Amino acid sequence: MILVVKSGGPEAVLEWRRGFGDLVPGLEVRDWNDPDVTPEMVDYALVWDPEPGRLAAMPRLRAIFGSGAGVDHIVADPTLPPGVPIVRCVPEEATQRMGEFVVWSVLSLAKEARRMALAQVASEWAAVDPPFAAADRTVGIMGLGAMGQRSAEMLRALGIPVRGWSRSRKSIPGVECFAGAEERDAFLAGCDVLVCLLPATAETQGLIAAPLLAKLPRGAGLVQVGRGAQQVLPDIIAALDSGQLSGAVLDVFTPEPLPAGSPAWAHPSIIVTPHVASLPSRAERARYVARAIAALERGETLPHLYDPARGY
Amino acid sequence: MILVVKSGGPEAVLEWRRGFGDLVPGLEVRDWNDPDVTPEMVDYALVWDPEPGRLAAMPRLRAIFGSGAGVDHIVADPTLPPGVPIVRCVPEEATQRMGEFVVWSVLSLAKEARRMALAQVASEWAAVDPPFAAADRTVGIMGLGAMGQRSAEMLRALGIPVRGWSRSRKSIPGVECFAGAEERDAFLAGCDVLVCLLPATAETQGLIAAPLLAKLPRGAGLVQVGRGAQQVLPDIIAALDSGQLSGAVLDVFTPEPLPAGSPAWAHPSIIVTPHVASLPSRAERARYVARAIAALERGETLPHLYDPARGY
Ligand SMILES: NC(=O)c1ccc[n+]([C@@H]2O[C@H](COP(=O)([O-])OP(=O)(O)OC[C@H]3O[C@@H](n4cnc5c(N)ncnc54)[C@H](OP(=O)(O)O)[C@@H]3O)[C@@H](O)[C@H]2O)c1
Ligand SMILES: NC(=O)c1ccc[n+]([C@@H]2O[C@H](COP(=O)([O-])OP(=O)(O)OC[C@H]3O[C@@H](n4cnc5c(N)ncnc54)[C@H](OP(=O)(O)O)[C@@H]3O)[C@@H](O)[C@H]2O)c1
Repeated sequence: MILVVKSGGPEAVLEWRRGFGDLVPGLEVRDWNDPDVTPEMVDYALVWDPEPGRLAAMPRLRAIFGSGAGVDHIVADPTLPPGVPIVRCVPEEATQRMGEFVVWSVLSLAKEARRMALAQVASEWAAVDPPFAAADRTVGIMGLGAMGQRSAEMLRALGIPVRGWSRSRKSIPGVECFAGAEERDAFLAGCDVLVCLLPATAETQGLIAAPLLAKLPRGAGLVQVGRGAQQVLPDIIAALDSGQLSGAVLDVFTPEPLPAGSPAWAHPSIIVTPHVASLPSRAERARYVARAIAALERGETLPHLYDPARGY
Repeated sequence: MILVVKSGGPEAVLEWRRGFGDLVPGLEVRDWNDPDVTPEMVDYALVWDPEPGRLAAMPRLRAIFGSGAGVDHIVADPTLPPGVPIVRCVPEEATQRMGEFVVWSVLSLAKEARRMALAQVASEWAAVDPPFAAADRTVGIMGLGAMGQRSAEMLRALGIPVRGWSRSRKSIPGVECFAGAEERDAFLAGCDVLVCLLPATAETQGLIAAPLLAKLPRGAGLVQVGRGAQQVLPDIIAALDSGQLSGAVLDVFTPEPLPAGSPAWAHPSIIVTPHVASLPSRAERARYVARAIAALERGETLPHLYDPARGY
């Protein structure tokens, strides 16, 4: 049984192999470009951003695993073999790390961390005096899936008020839930900080732009940990410069890496992080994929399956 | 009834006065150096770092309020009038803000926020790949008072393991508690991140120095939100440079403001914040002091009293 891996580059294959260890007896972990592996030999693929057409050429392929929670980089390939399940990588550690990152981002905005970081670079003791605690401001989460729900719980646990928005209505203790396009503006009107944890789909493309930002209360904060394709960076910068937004933490961009010339880098109200919101260790992801392969081999159905009808 | 205020400078007196409003009928809020107020007229004082001797000259003084949770800046005055209660300022908002700051600091260390901030300054996309989630590392809190306990609860709520150390033994659900000098080293040996929330006393003076840092596991993180007098900054820097510490968030210094020439500013593993860990709004602190004055006038005893026998 052969699993090919394209995630982290050829250097990472050894680490992946170590992560799989003997978790799946008989499983061989090979590099995506291993010259000794022909497409006919491949049973499973674990990939980030595979070259279009490559997966379709694997006749025996039983499942495609994304190496992250979002699989937009896989389903962008129009030639994907139909019927082969695409499994999103959502181990428990991934949601914990995302929740931690969202909490860190929300607190960084409340504590004016960017201003403090710039003051430190200038060796300046610039006492900041934020008029509120983080818990005085409502955080609104767009996307209440695995990542959004865990983030909501962790914010709530700190006493921070939380509301959320998703396609289908959710019921989460202590979280005011909104659903569907009709309720979007009502949701946005109460978000002192907006967190985006939506998947990249046709519907969410370019969503975080001037019209949406205008629906937020003046001076809101923004945490973008979804996908770069969802945002219009010049609109975010304009909103920061006009005071409509007070600060932003941006973890995702189009393209990545963010080019050195982007105005986001030096903006005094933007914290740029290099797509690190939730990167579980390779060991943890290998365990997750190993368990999923074992379940598939037993004929079980899996959670976190990509649904082509919904597009995520 | 007259309350004199020395906190935030003469500019802040108006804001304090607005904060008190009519909360205590008959209370006049005056500046510490108001030429129309003689020492004989003063009933209450709300102070930060008052000049030695000034409080002793107020014969009618019924209570001294610190404008922060620590009152070392008050009790440093050897002429303090005996028998006048000294009240620490610990409104609910102060513990919430401190808890938020401690969580932010612990997450900043886990997410390598300092490295990301420096990369941003250089417009560099420097993907970091921390091998652990914050929840994989135990946080140890020195000082389990109002601030330490709230911080412990908030870290626990995020799934982060917590242990604590105090003079007298505490019992806090989910927190492994150590007490007294005898158990200090056992406590330190299990702290992947050490948070200091001790008061500044003779016993805690210079505590965070090479001997204590050597008892931590190699590569530990440090969050210092107590008082500057508790640390030996060159020892902290040496520990960072040797790898004994992996990173530090320092909010307090001796002296403050931290001089522009301090090596802490540019150190790649130190986040410097300008003594802002827990600064509740003046409105909230005025409410707290007003309630305390009302309670004193009714003859009640107060929580958060300074105890001269313990020194905090
Ligand atoms: N920056 C990073 O490091 C990083 C790491 C991991 C994930 N992510 C991003 O986070 C996303 C979410 O991950 P997840 O595991 O939580 O996904 P998920 O479980 O599929 O949840 C997606 C959520 O978004 C909602 N949604 C989708 N389309 C919507 C629309 N048009 N309008 C309103 N709500 C919509 C879904 O609504 P329903 O509940 O009704 O289906 C669901 O609540 C990923 O797709 C990825 O883009 C980023
Ligand atoms: N950076 C900031 O912005 C900021 C803001 C607020 C406060 N602070 C600092 O935080 C400190 C704590 O505030 P708090 O309200 O939590 O004070 P607290 O309620 O008086 O608690 C102090 C804690 O420290 C413990 N302790 C004192 N001396 C000790 C010793 N020698 N060995 C072991 N434990 C000892 C006490 O033990 P017991 O429980 O046995 O008494 C208690 O648990 C303040 O004094 C101040 O220095 C800093």
